[in-house]
Amino acid sequence: MKKPVGSLRWAIAEGYIPGWSNGPKPQFTSHETVCILNASDQDAEIAITVFFSDREPAGPYRVTVGARRTKHVRFNNLSDPEPVPVDTDYASIIESNVPVVVQHSRLDSRQAENALLSTIAYPIPD
Amino acid sequence: MKKPVGSLRWAIAEGYIPGWSNGPKPQFTSHETVCILNASDQDAEIAITVFFSDREPAGPYRVTVGARRTKHVRFNNLSDPEPVPVDTDYASIIESNVPVVVQHSRLDSRQAENALLSTIAYPIPD
Amino acid sequence: MKKPVGSLRWAIAEGYIPGWSNGPKPQFTSHETVCILNASDQDAEIAITVFFSDREPAGPYRVTVGARRTKHVRFNNLSDPEPVPVDTDYASIIESNVPVVVQHSRLDSRQAENALLSTIAYPIPD
Amino acid sequence: MKKPVGSLRWAIAEGYIPGWSNGPKPQFTSHETVCILNASDQDAEIAITVFFSDREPAGPYRVTVGARRTKHVRFNNLSDPEPVPVDTDYASIIESNVPVVVQHSRLDSRQAENALLSTIAYPIPD
Repeated sequence: MKKPVGSLRWAIAEGYIPGWSNGPKPQFTSHETVCILNASDQDAEIAITVFFSDREPAGPYRVTVGARRTKHVRFNNLSDPEPVPVDTDYASIIESNVPVVVQHSRLDSRQAENALLSTIAYPIPD
Repeated sequence: MKKPVGSLRWAIAEGYIPGWSNGPKPQFTSHETVCILNASDQDAEIAITVFFSDREPAGPYRVTVGARRTKHVRFNNLSDPEPVPVDTDYASIIESNVPVVVQHSRLDSRQAENALLSTIAYPIPD
Repeated sequence: MKKPVGSLRWAIAEGYIPGWSNGPKPQFTSHETVCILNASDQDAEIAITVFFSDREPAGPYRVTVGARRTKHVRFNNLSDPEPVPVDTDYASIIESNVPVVVQHSRLDSRQAENALLSTIAYPIPD
Repeated sequence: MKKPVGSLRWAIAEGYIPGWSNGPKPQFTSHETVCILNASDQDAEIAITVFFSDREPAGPYRVTVGARRTKHVRFNNLSDPEPVPVDTDYASIIESNVPVVVQHSRLDSRQAENALLSTIAYPIPD
């Protein structure tokens, strides 16, 4: 992997953590995930900013993704500087010191059978 | 967020509001959403045009997304200049005065268990 | 809509029409759709080529999308020059004489509760 | 198809093979798929590298996609140099000697009713 893989900044305009869950934990806990791939040979220092409809943004949430590693970060598990509220519309921007690739996924298990969505995030041009 | 985040124009070629719903409102009302992130320091004045298979486009539907805010707009709730019909194929173009990021999602609760889809919209080059 | 919206060529690498269905027709017939938005002031003459894993491509399938119109084309309904087989992996390329926007969706109702997927197609650079 | 269709390198930041399944095989075996379209007139020699959260990458997994063919590769079925573990977060990079188009899909049948997701992969600029 000689050439850089990805972008330094990404945006996800959709965000929503379902308010409840059905099924065995942790696989079937309703969750929303930002999947980050760092194919570079240097650790990626990530800063996530969360945007809301009715207040100023929260963050930055800081995450490290090691060199040649992926990390699937559940928004549910972010707590510093503050938890991400459930049943609330949000959006996010992901910034990194090295190029990374970002994808957005949700598992919704509020009803007996789970539903899934996923999309590539939006790579913000430099 | 010094550099602009997003594009001034976006397109969503898929559009369909399911004709009925199951489950508690408003979370499980079948809906189709355009999620807009405005990471800039200026309010975004949005104009949405809706395209159909058999008639001229409807709109513009006008929405404001505040500076550093996100808004998840349900097509179901648009009413001015006219409602978006359910159980009808449509598509949409989203135009803004400042760069924004747009994502398209649907929750379909016509059957007992809900289904989800989502995708990044198409950023139209300037 | 002065400036062109979209690309002249698009690709969808995933394709699969589920082999059976549950629920009321036609909404819950399992189907795979290519959604095309033509925001231009000229009719779009579309040619769809379908690729398979074990034989030469089929097509072109010809579709017209009127000026300022959208058309959601079910692969299930294509018949000329030949039907698209169900329960078979395929992929597709969509070519147009004017810029269009393309999105790919599937409704799978093989089981009692339907599942959905959707993604923006890949815009092929000129 | 005179002009090249696609990119030489693609990334998928999300990856997860559900740990179990319901329903008739092989259609309803939970699976994760990388769909590759090779619209060129030359066979595509593909190398897939799989990234993990806690160990060095696996691969390359080698796949050939014939000229004017598509192949939907289930990660579940990759075995050389090693199987891809189930119920484990991963990500992948797909490299080809000719331009191809790549899409990512999952069918999750852990519960009685299946769920689907799909997204275009991220085309890595040359």
